[in-house]
Amino acid sequence: MHTTKPIGVFDSGIGGLTVVRHLIKQLPHERFVYLGDTARVPYGNKSAPTVERYSQQCAEFLLTHDVQCIVVACNTASALALQHLRATVSVPVIGVIEPAAVYAYQQSINGVIGVIGTRATIGSNIYSTTLDRVSHGNVRVHSTACPLFVPLVEEGWLQHAATRSIAEQYIEPLLACGVDTVILGCTHYPLLLPLLGQVAPAVQWIDGGSPTAKYVADNIVQHLHVNEHPTVPPTIPEIRMYVTDTSPMFQQLATQFLGMPSQEPVRVTIEHLTAVSQW
Amino acid sequence: MHTTKPIGVFDSGIGGLTVVRHLIKQLPHERFVYLGDTARVPYGNKSAPTVERYSQQCAEFLLTHDVQCIVVACNTASALALQHLRATVSVPVIGVIEPAAVYAYQQSINGVIGVIGTRATIGSNIYSTTLDRVSHGNVRVHSTACPLFVPLVEEGWLQHAATRSIAEQYIEPLLACGVDTVILGCTHYPLLLPLLGQVAPAVQWIDGGSPTAKYVADNIVQHLHVNEHPTVPPTIPEIRMYVTDTSPMFQQLATQFLGMPSQEPVRVTIEHLTAVSQW
Repeated sequence: MHTTKPIGVFDSGIGGLTVVRHLIKQLPHERFVYLGDTARVPYGNKSAPTVERYSQQCAEFLLTHDVQCIVVACNTASALALQHLRATVSVPVIGVIEPAAVYAYQQSINGVIGVIGTRATIGSNIYSTTLDRVSHGNVRVHSTACPLFVPLVEEGWLQHAATRSIAEQYIEPLLACGVDTVILGCTHYPLLLPLLGQVAPAVQWIDGGSPTAKYVADNIVQHLHVNEHPTVPPTIPEIRMYVTDTSPMFQQLATQFLGMPSQEPVRVTIEHLTAVSQW
Repeated sequence: MHTTKPIGVFDSGIGGLTVVRHLIKQLPHERFVYLGDTARVPYGNKSAPTVERYSQQCAEFLLTHDVQCIVVACNTASALALQHLRATVSVPVIGVIEPAAVYAYQQSINGVIGVIGTRATIGSNIYSTTLDRVSHGNVRVHSTACPLFVPLVEEGWLQHAATRSIAEQYIEPLLACGVDTVILGCTHYPLLLPLLGQVAPAVQWIDGGSPTAKYVADNIVQHLHVNEHPTVPPTIPEIRMYVTDTSPMFQQLATQFLGMPSQEPVRVTIEHLTAVSQW
C-alpha cells in the first residue's frame, strides 16, 4: 500500500527506540528502518573521530534501504557527527539536539536551563552552543555528565535506592544553579522520568524525542511527498529492526523503550556495515 | 639487551592493566605489548560470536608484534573465546579463568566458592565448569553478574555510598549461600577490593591477575627460552601500549589500574585490526 520511502533511524544501541516511539505517534502511517549498533555500544565513552566513523557507517547502511531521511536518535552521534553526516549523505539528516534545545528554550520561564547527558555529549558543549544560538544569548546553561544512568537503565534499576542516590548527586549542582528546565540529553534517560520527577519535582524535564518527532513530521516528511495514506493507521507500525549484535536482553529492553512489543531484530555484522561504507 | 620476544596482553579496555601489574611483579625483566580494544569496550554485554571475532582480531594484532605468548586479560574474552584462539593462534594463549579457579579452590576452606563477573562471563558458566573440573566435583559454586561494577570503577566511585549499596545487593545472595571465597571475575573489580573487604570482611577475594601471572612465569615464559637477563630489572618496565580509541580518561585510569604512571598509548584503528585479521 505504501508508495513512500521509509524513515531511517539509528542509535548506538536500543535507546533510540524512545525516539521511534514519538515518531510513530506523530507519523503513524510511516514505515521505519531502525539500526542499533549494539556491537559497539555505547558511543558516549568513545572519541569524536570514532563516533563520526561509526555514525557514517550506520547512515550508509540505512541508505541501502532507500530511506527518505535519517534521524540520528543518539545524542552522542548528534553531538559529534551531524555536520559530517549532512556533508556526506544525500538525504535530510535530523539530529535530536536542536529540536530539544528549541523546545527547552520555549518551555523555560527563568531562562536557566540544565542539560544532562553522556560524557561525550556534555564534553562537546553542543547543547550550550545550540541553546545560546536559538535563544540569541538569552539563556544560561548548566550541564553535567551522568555516565552511570545508561548502565542503571539497562539494568532496569529505574526506581532503585542506588539510582535515586546517584540521581540526587548528579542533579543537585544543577538545582543549586536555579535551573527550571532540564534537557534529557540521552535516549536512555526518559525511562528515569518517574524517578527524576521525584528527585526534582519543580523541574520541567525535556525528552528530545517528542520535539524531534514533531520537527520531522512538520518539516521533513510532508515536504518530501504527497501523502496517500489510508485513513486508518496500521495497528502495528512497520519497523524493520536491525542490530549489529544480538543480546538476550534485547527483546525486554526494546519493548520497554518502544512502549510496545518489538519485532525480532535482524543481525547485520560490523563487517557488512564497513563493507557498504566508504569510510 | 633483550633477546627474547615480548609478552602480548589484550583486554576489551584498560582493566587488563591490573593483570599486567601482576605480570611485571612476576616477570620484571620481560617486555610487554598491550592492546586495549577501547573502541568496542565493553565486551561483557556482547554476544559470544562477537566477542570471539573481536578477540581473534586483537590476538592477530599482537602476533604482528612477534609476541612469545598471548595473555587474554579480559575475563569475558577468556570465557568465550579461549578455545577458539587456541585452535587458531600459533603461540601459547593463557586466559585468566583457570588460574583463578585453581587458586580459589586451593584457598577455600569450606569448598563453597562465589564468582562475580560481567553478564557474559557469568552467563557462560565457565567458572562453575572449570571449578568443578579442577576440584573433581568437590566444590559448590554460586555466581552472580555485577554489571554496574565496571561503570562505577570507571567513574572512580570506589568508596561511594551508591557503590556500597550496590555491592551489598550483589554480594548478599552469595553470603547467604555460605561462600568463604569469591573470585573477582573481571579485571575492573580488584579496584573495589577495599570496599568489598568492608562489605564482606570474612570473605577471601581472589584477584585472578596474581595466579595468572604466576602461571605465565612458571609454565610459559621459562619454558620458551633461556633467560639472559641483566641481574637488576629495569626500573621502568617496557610496555608498548596500544588502544583502538583514545579517551581523555585513559592516562588517569591506566595509572590507577597499572599502579604506576603509564606510557602514552598509540592508537590503532579497528580497520587496521580487521585488515591484519583473517576474520
